[in-house]
Amino acid sequence: MRVSFQQLKDEIKRVFIKYGVPEEKAEICARIHTESTYDGIYSHGVNRVSRFADYLQRGWVDPNADPVIEKDCGAIKVINGNLGPGIVNALFAADQAMKMADQYGIGMVGIRNTTHWMRGGTYGKYVAEKGYVGIMWTNTEQCMPPWGAKEGRLGNNPYVMACPGVDGGPVMLLDMAMSQYAYGKLQVTRLAGKKLPFPGGFDKDGNVTDDPGAIEESRRIMPMGYWKGSSFAFMLDILGSILADGVGAVDLNAETKGSCGGCSQVMIVIDPKKTMDGEKMNETIRRAIDYVKGAEPAEHSSGVHVPGEGCIRFHKEHDEQGIYVDDTVWKDILAL
Amino acid sequence: MRVSFQQLKDEIKRVFIKYGVPEEKAEICARIHTESTYDGIYSHGVNRVSRFADYLQRGWVDPNADPVIEKDCGAIKVINGNLGPGIVNALFAADQAMKMADQYGIGMVGIRNTTHWMRGGTYGKYVAEKGYVGIMWTNTEQCMPPWGAKEGRLGNNPYVMACPGVDGGPVMLLDMAMSQYAYGKLQVTRLAGKKLPFPGGFDKDGNVTDDPGAIEESRRIMPMGYWKGSSFAFMLDILGSILADGVGAVDLNAETKGSCGGCSQVMIVIDPKKTMDGEKMNETIRRAIDYVKGAEPAEHSSGVHVPGEGCIRFHKEHDEQGIYVDDTVWKDILAL
Repeated sequence: MRVSFQQLKDEIKRVFIKYGVPEEKAEICARIHTESTYDGIYSHGVNRVSRFADYLQRGWVDPNADPVIEKDCGAIKVINGNLGPGIVNALFAADQAMKMADQYGIGMVGIRNTTHWMRGGTYGKYVAEKGYVGIMWTNTEQCMPPWGAKEGRLGNNPYVMACPGVDGGPVMLLDMAMSQYAYGKLQVTRLAGKKLPFPGGFDKDGNVTDDPGAIEESRRIMPMGYWKGSSFAFMLDILGSILADGVGAVDLNAETKGSCGGCSQVMIVIDPKKTMDGEKMNETIRRAIDYVKGAEPAEHSSGVHVPGEGCIRFHKEHDEQGIYVDDTVWKDILAL
Repeated sequence: MRVSFQQLKDEIKRVFIKYGVPEEKAEICARIHTESTYDGIYSHGVNRVSRFADYLQRGWVDPNADPVIEKDCGAIKVINGNLGPGIVNALFAADQAMKMADQYGIGMVGIRNTTHWMRGGTYGKYVAEKGYVGIMWTNTEQCMPPWGAKEGRLGNNPYVMACPGVDGGPVMLLDMAMSQYAYGKLQVTRLAGKKLPFPGGFDKDGNVTDDPGAIEESRRIMPMGYWKGSSFAFMLDILGSILADGVGAVDLNAETKGSCGGCSQVMIVIDPKKTMDGEKMNETIRRAIDYVKGAEPAEHSSGVHVPGEGCIRFHKEHDEQGIYVDDTVWKDILAL
């Protein structure tokens, strides 16, 4: 079905308040879930509302906990998220990092003991829309076998890079997890009776496969770029732990604290005005975009895109027809 | 053939001096080329000596140019590499970044107008061996089509993440370029009459292929993780330009200035002692390594590895038998 931004946000906020989130935090969380949905990232927007409510009910997220700055040293801060709502903690951290970037040109915040931040791109977008460059990641509980193994020991850690758009236009935003496909994508593809566009994992006998059901069964999802994504995921895990004074996959157990319950996040924020003049930056980004998008399209290409461009088509559709929400998801939310 | 570390370094140094590099810089560059070779990264070690000499001869690298700090603002510096030897510029920048990390906890250096730094991992290793965390990348001239295009417009930008090893042991080191396979790997595989282990690009008709010769012909190498690597490469390109006040793929032309001639590099260096106690850090890394390496191996697995572990086997072999150098490469160097 289709709903308005306001309608969606109000309904999500109602649910969060009902499950014990104080009004101010419920407003923030509902807004972020709604914005992600508006951007077309349904999986981490409206489709995660029920799960967040479930986590609140189980006590895996403490709605009343506030983030606390534990270490404050030059251009670095470490924040204890106290298992409070991940969105609130991450926005607090991003604000701190921007303040340090104002003062020192660059600032880093490590957030330990926090909970799921939903869409990683939210925070890249948040700082880039204010004129900053952001490099951010989170570690997660294990859900992916390291390259050469059949047993999940790596998190599907999302990694984010963001920078301002041209003349305040849409920001340049990379937001990618370390697996080639998420389990959500496997499910959607299987339900549609389709194969994956490219191999996405191994079946239970260790054969590379594009059959989503076989991967769901084996739990042997594949890192993007094979050994490259495996190594990248490992680095994000340990650097997340170290730079946030927190823990990583080995200590995160989704069955006792939910996905990302107690995880570590890192946000590095840079003020690019300290390195490049604003007009020159505009021109640099514009030329890079034109260059890449001007490449001759491949056979059967659906277009050449730059990172962050994907949401534009959703904005258009959602502005014209209202924001899309899956009927079942909407019914579940109304019933909460 | 096999040579000693000293023998290899001396021979490379002799060549560099002959081609106009001042003694002190020749010593530094020769040492780095030799260390990369010792680590088993032949492609960016001994195998690049002839090409570097060629660049010197063509005037693409100015052996007498020194890096100059152009902007200095809190925890950020911008350095003009003045097209001097990329290794010298990058080590200078890494030293500057570590100094800022000492003072502020984190420091960033952008290097514009520099030349090929050879192996990106060199600088990650350099700072990690001194106890720092490093996040680094360079942009390059175009050599890879963006996802959805057939024409090269993206650089195969290397990205590096490094952190100290356990108890001063081998550092954790991710050093990956954005393509699934480098052109060097395609050539080696083709000459051996083999196929790539996984698809590495498209043939001239746009079909996904594991035939290295077909990709060399089409020049349609594939980004790691398909669309993911394509977006990642784009972000590294523009963020490289912006944070170094320099240029990216659109302005880098390998035919007039060589590979990476005039490129932009970024080094973010962090002092992890500011976030986590040293003993706890050791323990955190050790546990993460044990956890990942303890995963049940896949069928036909050659082992489960952590990033940076690869060089250990080369060290053993090179210590026992001398450093391996391809006969033709060695003959070429002696003839220079």
